[in-house]
Amino acid sequence: MDTRALFKLSYGLYIVTSKIADRYNGQIANTVFQISGTPNTIAVSINKNNLTNEFIRESKLFVVSVLSQESPLSLIGHFGFKSGRDIDKLAGVKYEITENGIPYITQTTLSYMEARVFQEVDAGTHTIFIGELIGAEIFGEGIPMTYDYYHKLKSGIISSTSAGVAEPVIEEVNKTDKYECNVCGYIYDPIEGDPDAGIAAGTAFDDLPADWVCPVCGAGKDKFSKV
Amino acid sequence: MDTRALFKLSYGLYIVTSKIADRYNGQIANTVFQISGTPNTIAVSINKNNLTNEFIRESKLFVVSVLSQESPLSLIGHFGFKSGRDIDKLAGVKYEITENGIPYITQTTLSYMEARVFQEVDAGTHTIFIGELIGAEIFGEGIPMTYDYYHKLKSGIISSTSAGVAEPVIEEVNKTDKYECNVCGYIYDPIEGDPDAGIAAGTAFDDLPADWVCPVCGAGKDKFSKV
Repeated sequence: MDTRALFKLSYGLYIVTSKIADRYNGQIANTVFQISGTPNTIAVSINKNNLTNEFIRESKLFVVSVLSQESPLSLIGHFGFKSGRDIDKLAGVKYEITENGIPYITQTTLSYMEARVFQEVDAGTHTIFIGELIGAEIFGEGIPMTYDYYHKLKSGIISSTSAGVAEPVIEEVNKTDKYECNVCGYIYDPIEGDPDAGIAAGTAFDDLPADWVCPVCGAGKDKFSKV
Repeated sequence: MDTRALFKLSYGLYIVTSKIADRYNGQIANTVFQISGTPNTIAVSINKNNLTNEFIRESKLFVVSVLSQESPLSLIGHFGFKSGRDIDKLAGVKYEITENGIPYITQTTLSYMEARVFQEVDAGTHTIFIGELIGAEIFGEGIPMTYDYYHKLKSGIISSTSAGVAEPVIEEVNKTDKYECNVCGYIYDPIEGDPDAGIAAGTAFDDLPADWVCPVCGAGKDKFSKV
């Protein structure tokens, strides 16, 4: 079995937001999809460890903001690799509020979709939230960001200021190389280690124990690629 | 609410296959996604009216073949717009069989993933089948076909023999124009009409009643675009 076949699946890239009381949160997600047209139904898969999962379970509402290809890596990193448990994810980000009080991101995004959850599916590490579309607007021109495009941007294969495709960057191997989880996008940085799992700062990816797993989604070491 | 926001979601394009006893079937699907990495779990959303839905419910097995950008429109049309109730979908198509007896397509495809269903989610018009990955291989080089790329190919914006992007084709309006369901890909052809819904052959799309819906997925007229 060659699990790299999973990397041939295509995804978009989105910011999923929700709230509890007057507190907002949001995160990057790539598994957002339409389920039905009668009624319009969308679904999103969110890791149970993420704060956004807790917010959606509580409010039964989520909003999907569609990132454009123009989105800077810094915006994606902000929503993708920081936790709302540590920072206010919406601080310093341009957003508006739907009638139901959920924020949608308005910088380098194309549209939003708002859904009211009518079904939660326990899918192991993740919850699939299925909701009826209750709001949707298009407010930006441009091409939606895909997961594939994002990875090419991040690896330097595509420049963020050019639509052209350049030569792949030559890889250099060293002990400070960062590795990215191909499942959820978490990046292991040797400089930081993984203190929650007892991995000291300064531990190279190669030196992580074989049973170490992604702290965000639980994927094994074999699911990581050098950034 | 502008439901065209739904069109900003990004998808891949796949052939999903299953079997009942010694009979195979397959169809085009765009909602295939990984749910978890521990264990590797994938999900697919299939319209309840489709024969493949019945086959997966019965066998608890499905296989996803990843189409490449090189896939001809004829192959996609064969699996997308014909029913296994009328024809043997695998006849004349190159395929191999997994250890569990499910076919995967080997022409202009890149890889396959096989899953054993452990959960079925009733999502209205569709069933979401969630399964543990039990087989996966990569056997082709190339770029995965996306739903977006397929639509550009079909509308002539991209030529299937060229990676370049050409000018959009000028639209002409006439009574024999075909219209495509943006939700499921069904094509309304005025030459055929929709006899099951009492729509006579020769009925132009504009002349369909306002409450006519897609015979495959139930989407309304406003979900259709001219092909």
